[in-house]
Amino acid sequence: MKTGDFAKVITKDQELSGIIMPNSNNKTLFLKLENGYNIGINRKNIKKINVLNMKKETVKKEKVEIKSKKNLPVISLLHTGGTISSRIDYSTGAVMPAITPEELIEMFPELQEIANIKSRLLSNIASEDLRFGDYKIIAKEIEKEIRSGVDGIIIGHGTDTMHYTSAALSFILEDLGIPVILVGAQRSSDRGSSDAFLNLLSAAIFITKTDFSGICICMHENLNDKNCLILPGLKTRKMHTSRRDAFKAINDDAIALVNPENKKIDFFKHYNKKDKSKKLKIYPDMEEKVAIIRTHTNMSEKQFEFYKDYKGLIIEGTGLGHIPGGKNNQKIVDVVKKLAKKIPVVMTSQCVFGRVNMNVYSPQKILLDSGVIPGNDMTSETAFIKLAWLLKNKKTKVRELMTENLKGEINQRLKERHYIEDEF
Amino acid sequence: MKTGDFAKVITKDQELSGIIMPNSNNKTLFLKLENGYNIGINRKNIKKINVLNMKKETVKKEKVEIKSKKNLPVISLLHTGGTISSRIDYSTGAVMPAITPEELIEMFPELQEIANIKSRLLSNIASEDLRFGDYKIIAKEIEKEIRSGVDGIIIGHGTDTMHYTSAALSFILEDLGIPVILVGAQRSSDRGSSDAFLNLLSAAIFITKTDFSGICICMHENLNDKNCLILPGLKTRKMHTSRRDAFKAINDDAIALVNPENKKIDFFKHYNKKDKSKKLKIYPDMEEKVAIIRTHTNMSEKQFEFYKDYKGLIIEGTGLGHIPGGKNNQKIVDVVKKLAKKIPVVMTSQCVFGRVNMNVYSPQKILLDSGVIPGNDMTSETAFIKLAWLLKNKKTKVRELMTENLKGEINQRLKERHYIEDEF
Repeated sequence: MKTGDFAKVITKDQELSGIIMPNSNNKTLFLKLENGYNIGINRKNIKKINVLNMKKETVKKEKVEIKSKKNLPVISLLHTGGTISSRIDYSTGAVMPAITPEELIEMFPELQEIANIKSRLLSNIASEDLRFGDYKIIAKEIEKEIRSGVDGIIIGHGTDTMHYTSAALSFILEDLGIPVILVGAQRSSDRGSSDAFLNLLSAAIFITKTDFSGICICMHENLNDKNCLILPGLKTRKMHTSRRDAFKAINDDAIALVNPENKKIDFFKHYNKKDKSKKLKIYPDMEEKVAIIRTHTNMSEKQFEFYKDYKGLIIEGTGLGHIPGGKNNQKIVDVVKKLAKKIPVVMTSQCVFGRVNMNVYSPQKILLDSGVIPGNDMTSETAFIKLAWLLKNKKTKVRELMTENLKGEINQRLKERHYIEDEF
Repeated sequence: MKTGDFAKVITKDQELSGIIMPNSNNKTLFLKLENGYNIGINRKNIKKINVLNMKKETVKKEKVEIKSKKNLPVISLLHTGGTISSRIDYSTGAVMPAITPEELIEMFPELQEIANIKSRLLSNIASEDLRFGDYKIIAKEIEKEIRSGVDGIIIGHGTDTMHYTSAALSFILEDLGIPVILVGAQRSSDRGSSDAFLNLLSAAIFITKTDFSGICICMHENLNDKNCLILPGLKTRKMHTSRRDAFKAINDDAIALVNPENKKIDFFKHYNKKDKSKKLKIYPDMEEKVAIIRTHTNMSEKQFEFYKDYKGLIIEGTGLGHIPGGKNNQKIVDVVKKLAKKIPVVMTSQCVFGRVNMNVYSPQKILLDSGVIPGNDMTSETAFIKLAWLLKNKKTKVRELMTENLKGEINQRLKERHYIEDEF
């Protein structure tokens, strides 16, 4: 039995068939299952291993032939860093950067069978470390790839702020004619049970099998390791620290569901069609002095006053869009009113789900009158990115455009109605 | 046809039977359905109204008799303010404070049939305006009621920060022997389709029909207006701006499900038993200088530096518990390290769901070494309240106790395991 053999492994609980992976060691046997998913099996629990097919030493050669022969679509795989580009050090358990693009492709040779993959390392940055300047670099690299005529782009990205980047790219890229899909992993690519492969494969299948164009995120649908969701770049959020299905559409539907096994794709909503003749323009500048402040009970007005020299502020309030007020928080209200007169102050909700509505209670009406801009059903992250982008690219119309749907960031579907009443 | 009549209303879409409510007007007929739920029907859509039973003028008298005769449990209903104590001004559409306790009981006479309700207005504060001092007032009033021998307490509360208050009471009240249930409403009590009644009735039934003791929240299970969930006071969060089922248990199960129609109660987990002989102690002091800072991309170290004179800080980081780092955010890391050496700095996650794990990536290990305290699976709100409480009540053991489960704030169930791997 050796790496690359196709084997049936019998444990006390189950039978599993798959290819023996190179990262197997004395304690753990890693197996790539037929659905492309890797699992680790404790050697202690293994009763029997039957090698069903020896590794074909010719596989590598065959692949090269396939690659040059077939007229496959071209996908650019741009790595920015994050868990998807990381490997685990099995002796210490720490996650290490980085797996090389070549190694990644070598680990998942199936990718090469559905497209010609051009894999390239842009950076090796954990997503929580990204700054606006990094969005600019990614946008420029996307522009380069599109000019070279690729059919789709996959961005390998850390998961922590993947939804900030997808929001930023949605505003920065204008007249995008192909799909640009951000893909991350909650477990490093070389691990048993990494979600990297299913996410990458699903994104590649989605690019090659559909005429979709636009910015989206491709991650696990649930914990079954069967399907991936294609999620809207402006209405998605990381909603779990560790689960593979951490990414959820917020106040919107997923765009599509991809089953990589049978290559079936179900669309849930309207989308922009691919058009390679479109000429991409990029507007990558973003205002640096923008922030999010999250309200909580027992705040001090000084927490808000800190932002007086900023150019824009997102207040992540409570419920329908509240800040601490009333007689015991009057100073806070005064500071926010003053701020909102000076700079664009946008209200979002720490509820995450639902729509801000500042017309219900009178203290909110006072804020509205002072110029506070309701963030509608945008996530705080999307509102933050949009505000920073508008401040540099639509300077004279920031307040007006914050409340308009420019790229799908505001869901304008009819509000849920209960009989004759408003939604609140 | 008059207020109090039981009528069948036929509209173009449906037939509805119920009691005609006093807030009906020329445009809208409000009907209390048999499940206790109120709805508003646009008069334009009404085809026919059949009065099935005229209002019995003796009803009121009968009630008084019932109240004095039966040996019913006693429930204190303490109103703090919020939508549940508000009425809508149907001419302007604005929500007005406040409905009086007497009015509320009059609107929902069914409550008086299952318990003797002592209804009392403590304050009229929208929950987003509450400060730590208000938790102290509520705690003292609870103490008063318990001394008077009540069987349970319902706190009428605004929804925006109801989960902050339930967390605070969980730490403040020691040796609580009866149930204390926070109840809110997403729609004001006098409105058709208000959720107030079902929430109040479910809480009252839960108090009278079970031997539960502790702090919890009672709100709608879903949009069916059928059941309510009893949610854990330390592991619940408002997760939607407007839906009646906005409150969700986070990283935990609901405690129980109450069906007020058939008075059936299903428990999902272990709970502390009622013991009226317990002697309540209250520890209501909380440190004022504690805050939550939510990270985002492109931050400045000055946003963190602002908190250098605070006594404690919650950092709501990304993913497993990250702050912006790497070479472009080195100043932020330096400031946080400095802060964490000086004051307790606790890491939570803006993912909301899942557990912080600071042992996975090396930049986090550096933060751990500097003293940053992992918030485990606590919500940011619960961690914030706990930290403020520990700083006043367990001064010498703050860091140690932040990582221990004191009152159910940390879920210590076995972590979800995928084969041999850790949960991340």
